[in-house]
Amino acid sequence: MSDKLKRVAIIGSGNWGSTIAKIVGNNIKKFGTFENEIKMYVYEEMIDGKKLTDIINQEHENKKYLPGHKLPDNVVACADVAESAKDADILLIVLPHQFIERTCSTMKDQIKRTAFAVSFSKGFYVNKDKKVELISAVINRQLDIPCYVLMGANIANEVAAGTFCEATVGSRNYEHAQLIKGLIQTDEFRIVIKPDTEVIEVLGALKNIVAVAAGFSDGLGFGDNTKAAVIRLGLKEMVKFCEEFFPGHHPQIFLESCGVADLVTTCYGGRNRRVAEAFVKTGKDIKTLEEEMLNGQKLQGPDAAAEVMEWLKSKGQTNKFPLFSAVHDICERRLEPKLLLEALRHHPEYW
Amino acid sequence: MSDKLKRVAIIGSGNWGSTIAKIVGNNIKKFGTFENEIKMYVYEEMIDGKKLTDIINQEHENKKYLPGHKLPDNVVACADVAESAKDADILLIVLPHQFIERTCSTMKDQIKRTAFAVSFSKGFYVNKDKKVELISAVINRQLDIPCYVLMGANIANEVAAGTFCEATVGSRNYEHAQLIKGLIQTDEFRIVIKPDTEVIEVLGALKNIVAVAAGFSDGLGFGDNTKAAVIRLGLKEMVKFCEEFFPGHHPQIFLESCGVADLVTTCYGGRNRRVAEAFVKTGKDIKTLEEEMLNGQKLQGPDAAAEVMEWLKSKGQTNKFPLFSAVHDICERRLEPKLLLEALRHHPEYW
Repeated sequence: MSDKLKRVAIIGSGNWGSTIAKIVGNNIKKFGTFENEIKMYVYEEMIDGKKLTDIINQEHENKKYLPGHKLPDNVVACADVAESAKDADILLIVLPHQFIERTCSTMKDQIKRTAFAVSFSKGFYVNKDKKVELISAVINRQLDIPCYVLMGANIANEVAAGTFCEATVGSRNYEHAQLIKGLIQTDEFRIVIKPDTEVIEVLGALKNIVAVAAGFSDGLGFGDNTKAAVIRLGLKEMVKFCEEFFPGHHPQIFLESCGVADLVTTCYGGRNRRVAEAFVKTGKDIKTLEEEMLNGQKLQGPDAAAEVMEWLKSKGQTNKFPLFSAVHDICERRLEPKLLLEALRHHPEYW
Repeated sequence: MSDKLKRVAIIGSGNWGSTIAKIVGNNIKKFGTFENEIKMYVYEEMIDGKKLTDIINQEHENKKYLPGHKLPDNVVACADVAESAKDADILLIVLPHQFIERTCSTMKDQIKRTAFAVSFSKGFYVNKDKKVELISAVINRQLDIPCYVLMGANIANEVAAGTFCEATVGSRNYEHAQLIKGLIQTDEFRIVIKPDTEVIEVLGALKNIVAVAAGFSDGLGFGDNTKAAVIRLGLKEMVKFCEEFFPGHHPQIFLESCGVADLVTTCYGGRNRRVAEAFVKTGKDIKTLEEEMLNGQKLQGPDAAAEVMEWLKSKGQTNKFPLFSAVHDICERRLEPKLLLEALRHHPEYW
């Protein structure tokens, strides 16, 4: 490694991006390994007549997406993504997955050849040829640098508040993995490094489909036993998906924070579960509920289900994933929610 | 297999035993494989001046332990355990684990040499030499017949009400496993057979220790991320325990109903979680809370923690299981509940 201090940039400044900025900014102050200043790319918005970048740089708080938490003063908001990424050795990319391709294409000419990226985005990306790609693969394709991932049971507000939690970093490069761990780990936010990058990322996307099924189960009033069966059969389909399409991973990767922990938290507490419950109880469609319950933000689970079904159809494998299929069909109103039970009863697990 | 119809006996008639009686009684009526009459051993009690056995045999309802559910009329309550077990080919043993040894010793002279048993009891047994044994091992030792297990995410009242759920049967004997599946499986209660009998049983006992930790986390107000970490680190200790002491199992046995599903349900809905939360919030000891919250019934988690610590001490392995250790120490008031966090922060998972 060179003696020159490493420069870190954070691309994205939503709830999770601002939380990561808080942690990384504070960590960097403690070590001599990194440049003190961190540029954080902020999609410019006007908040009560002031620019969001100005609010962050003057008040050291992202009043829109992480109110109530001071950001360290070495985090500098920047509305120009190419300027934010320029000269960075480590790019922490914390964007909603639908903005990844466009944002990467804007900054690609400014990327240092020796840099690497870490993706924090859960979800697949459907490219212009209708092919499903992992987010890390899009970043790698666009920026032509290695891209690792960080996934886990991490509700951003709780991480920002400093309650104890953990995450999984996926990287096969030991030196880079240690740098990421050093940047992000605190006494309260513990990092486990595992080499199964693709699987770690896939689990982060698939778990939202299972959470939708768990929400249907709650909406139908099925109780704890049924919900446990839904979560388990969903987990088994997640495992099956990884075995079919990303073979060679460690069989216990599913027991990491990115696997069972993230799944469980999402199935009990997350918004995919909540909206899916309302979908059954109110009879409204997903789009209406997104507007009513999420201020128009997209729910990841129904999209992930649609993307995974595309993927499975192209491989002729839909019949091995009846829970994923049922979630997609129910979201599209092609299947009555209560027929979720049929997908469970006749699941290949019981053959 | 002989042409003679198989006779089934149910030993135990609590909430779970009565639920199993309801399912098995109805299933037996459908098939020609089994004798129609099932004897169910009932610990005799007086309810409003009437014997519980008389209530069950006249009104076909266990008014004390499963009120509101009709038992099929082929289930015959019997207050004599030896008489209940006599001539049975299949013994379904559904007793609280502290009564297993004594009850088995009462019926052992009446057991058919060709019979086999299925244990439904979660928990370890500490024998008179202070050795920790599995319940199935106690049954096998006492009755000298094979003993299999049924475990899973099964809240008895929900199973009795017929909501969808699943369970894992542990058996290495294919013919016996198919008989058990035929007896118990319904459209709503799905059975998966796996050969890892000991591990399936061990998970059923260990999960209660993790649920106590989850309850402490809830009582301390730690939030969803921390609880997810507690459940996952607990699961990893369950896996470690099985790898150390019951090696050779399938690495995905933890993804069965007896593993992750039962664990999750217990950590979100079970009474170990509930009492542990109260333990932190009220400062009362476990014994007092058992009296106040469980009508004096014993909580399984703190006992299981004590038994596992005995086991680990005898093997010199306590340091590999900091979450189990912390649960035991907190239950015994040797450790402040909030120091659970120290066990998490410095967990071997992060080394």
